[in-house]
Amino acid sequence: MAVQTFPPMRALSLTGGAVPQRGFTPAEFEHRLARAQRILHAHWLDAVFVTSPPNVRYFTGFDSQFWESPTRPWFVVVPAQGKPIAVVPEIGAPEMARTWLDDVRSWPAPVPSDDGISLLRATLEAIPARFGRIGAELGREMSLRMPVTDFLTLRDTLSREIVDGSPAIWEMRLVKTDAEIAHIAHICAIASDAYEALPAAISVCESEREAVRKLRIDIARRGADSTPFMPAISGPGGVDQIVCGPGDRILEEGDILFIDTGSTFDGYFCDFDRNYAIGTLSSEAARVHEALWLATEAGIAAAVPGATTDEVWRTMNAYLEEAGAIGNNVGRLGHGLGLQLTEPPSHRPGDGTIIVENMVLTIEPGMEYAPGKMIVHEENIVVTGDGPRLLTSRAPRDMPVIR
Amino acid sequence: MAVQTFPPMRALSLTGGAVPQRGFTPAEFEHRLARAQRILHAHWLDAVFVTSPPNVRYFTGFDSQFWESPTRPWFVVVPAQGKPIAVVPEIGAPEMARTWLDDVRSWPAPVPSDDGISLLRATLEAIPARFGRIGAELGREMSLRMPVTDFLTLRDTLSREIVDGSPAIWEMRLVKTDAEIAHIAHICAIASDAYEALPAAISVCESEREAVRKLRIDIARRGADSTPFMPAISGPGGVDQIVCGPGDRILEEGDILFIDTGSTFDGYFCDFDRNYAIGTLSSEAARVHEALWLATEAGIAAAVPGATTDEVWRTMNAYLEEAGAIGNNVGRLGHGLGLQLTEPPSHRPGDGTIIVENMVLTIEPGMEYAPGKMIVHEENIVVTGDGPRLLTSRAPRDMPVIR
Repeated sequence: MAVQTFPPMRALSLTGGAVPQRGFTPAEFEHRLARAQRILHAHWLDAVFVTSPPNVRYFTGFDSQFWESPTRPWFVVVPAQGKPIAVVPEIGAPEMARTWLDDVRSWPAPVPSDDGISLLRATLEAIPARFGRIGAELGREMSLRMPVTDFLTLRDTLSREIVDGSPAIWEMRLVKTDAEIAHIAHICAIASDAYEALPAAISVCESEREAVRKLRIDIARRGADSTPFMPAISGPGGVDQIVCGPGDRILEEGDILFIDTGSTFDGYFCDFDRNYAIGTLSSEAARVHEALWLATEAGIAAAVPGATTDEVWRTMNAYLEEAGAIGNNVGRLGHGLGLQLTEPPSHRPGDGTIIVENMVLTIEPGMEYAPGKMIVHEENIVVTGDGPRLLTSRAPRDMPVIR
Repeated sequence: MAVQTFPPMRALSLTGGAVPQRGFTPAEFEHRLARAQRILHAHWLDAVFVTSPPNVRYFTGFDSQFWESPTRPWFVVVPAQGKPIAVVPEIGAPEMARTWLDDVRSWPAPVPSDDGISLLRATLEAIPARFGRIGAELGREMSLRMPVTDFLTLRDTLSREIVDGSPAIWEMRLVKTDAEIAHIAHICAIASDAYEALPAAISVCESEREAVRKLRIDIARRGADSTPFMPAISGPGGVDQIVCGPGDRILEEGDILFIDTGSTFDGYFCDFDRNYAIGTLSSEAARVHEALWLATEAGIAAAVPGATTDEVWRTMNAYLEEAGAIGNNVGRLGHGLGLQLTEPPSHRPGDGTIIVENMVLTIEPGMEYAPGKMIVHEENIVVTGDGPRLLTSRAPRDMPVIR
């Protein structure tokens, strides 16, 4: 197969090496809202109300780690006309009032008997009715962050129909703004540098857990805000899964150490992995690594405006089949990312998403080449009018070695 | 008011200073299951199925950061007889098979048209029917981590009724095992030490964000696995909110720097804050600090088996009123903690929970003493047969000073 090779490109080309301004301008939020309102109209929705941290943040800029507490629900209503309205627990009202929103309503939560439901209902009832439909986070790749019993009470007592708003919400978030892309590029650059520095910091006979601790601290030092996702798994010639760990396993000669990270800057994620050979790499593992490296090149090249996610999958999958893949339990070969570690679309057969400019995507080919021996590569890209551009520093073609 | 003062006690007395064994024995899970099954019976439930990370972990020990990806739902069925059954995406099956569970079922997720629903339904239908009721995470302080549309499809096609299982699930998790308490004690000790070391590491003219970065790195170095929650807020003589931040605000003479943290060890949280005076503390702030310190002492002393959470609230609130509190937007004066940053019960009027041995609780009095000037204290305790015991190193009676 003909392969277009990408020179190592750095996020620096997007950010100029500077740390992006934290937060977003009111103009940015106006732009997001205008886009959202066009989409609401196309979906015949009078409004959506959102409850989950990334959706609340997308429309308001509200940033908090307090989402770790499951006690209180939070709501933001995005109407088809006018600015979003926050309906939040009193504990969050002072900070929500500092966002670009004008209308912040609150109640003295927690109040189990009525934790914001009557206030949310009154807010929704006052939204001008055109279609008689309100969207909520009821569908794919979303969870409703409120008690389902409360949701059903609201649904049954609201004068308008509540329908699945997730297709509309994902349509809003699927295409990133330039400011969002600069955020993602920055965290990709931080994690790229830390991955490159890792072999010098660890050695054979250390544990997976120790490797993660060092990488986690290094990523924080370089300016990441958090690292919610950093699985590390090691095994002879590959690993049998890529989502759990680290454990206390000691790195041994012949292992491949797989590390993935979703670290964040100002709310935005990177999501890419690296593989390290411990001591030596078997010729078979090296062959598979090379095939995956080429599959990644091809996957990046395929992610052009107008292509579908199915095509991106097919392009990469051809390399995996040719290399003798016996499986891959990941279920897809990449996905969107942004305010979440993974977002739609998925590079998989049947996904059918048409790729457009300003989508940010992972290119993630992986294959099991022998039972229990899986290798997975991953890079992050942004789709531009000139084609795909790497946000990560491209993984070296030869697997880095830890001694 | 008479105040029982607590000498500085260290978590060391519970853990002997050693790092607790990671994970839990099969006997521990058998114990949790037996307790859960007694509670299922009392709630007339044939089973509960759970979807959220802490509930899945509680019953299986399954640990993953992959929950950051919202793409795939996961299910664990806890039946009234027999061991739990996992119904999980293929990507998670290898690791789930390493837990104490015997029965792990999987499907090739993501498959939007049927992401585990028919497999979950078949699993639930095969559970022996006694009460005809299945519990799910539908109520207080819980969210269902699956698309609501899928849940409603399941509910409408299952031969048994799906009811709110959250009261039963919280009853199971409310009382901790000794092994869980040792985990919480360990992370409390780590964070206590880091808080004590902080004044030497930062100085006036640094930013909130820099203070958090240093504390975050120090807590990781001392052995914490993650720090999902670390708000830091500074303001002259107090702060107006305690859940958002850090920001880029530079610490100034006369400020109080409030830092809270939920850091974790092996899945278990601490949740307590500390206050630092920048340079000097006004006499008014010092007076309020002293009142809160005494309220904390009283709150700890009140958390004895047989007392209610209402009484613990009343005990602390008397100090706050006497000290001239004009408000507190937190809505309660402490709560449970464990696998989550906050768990039931709540120290608030009307909560009505009777405190029993092996509950782990925060004691968290806070008050606004002038508009925009709030101070909040917090410690973590375990309730024993001999009364409350501190898991945190008690905050110093005089507010530590950063110069």
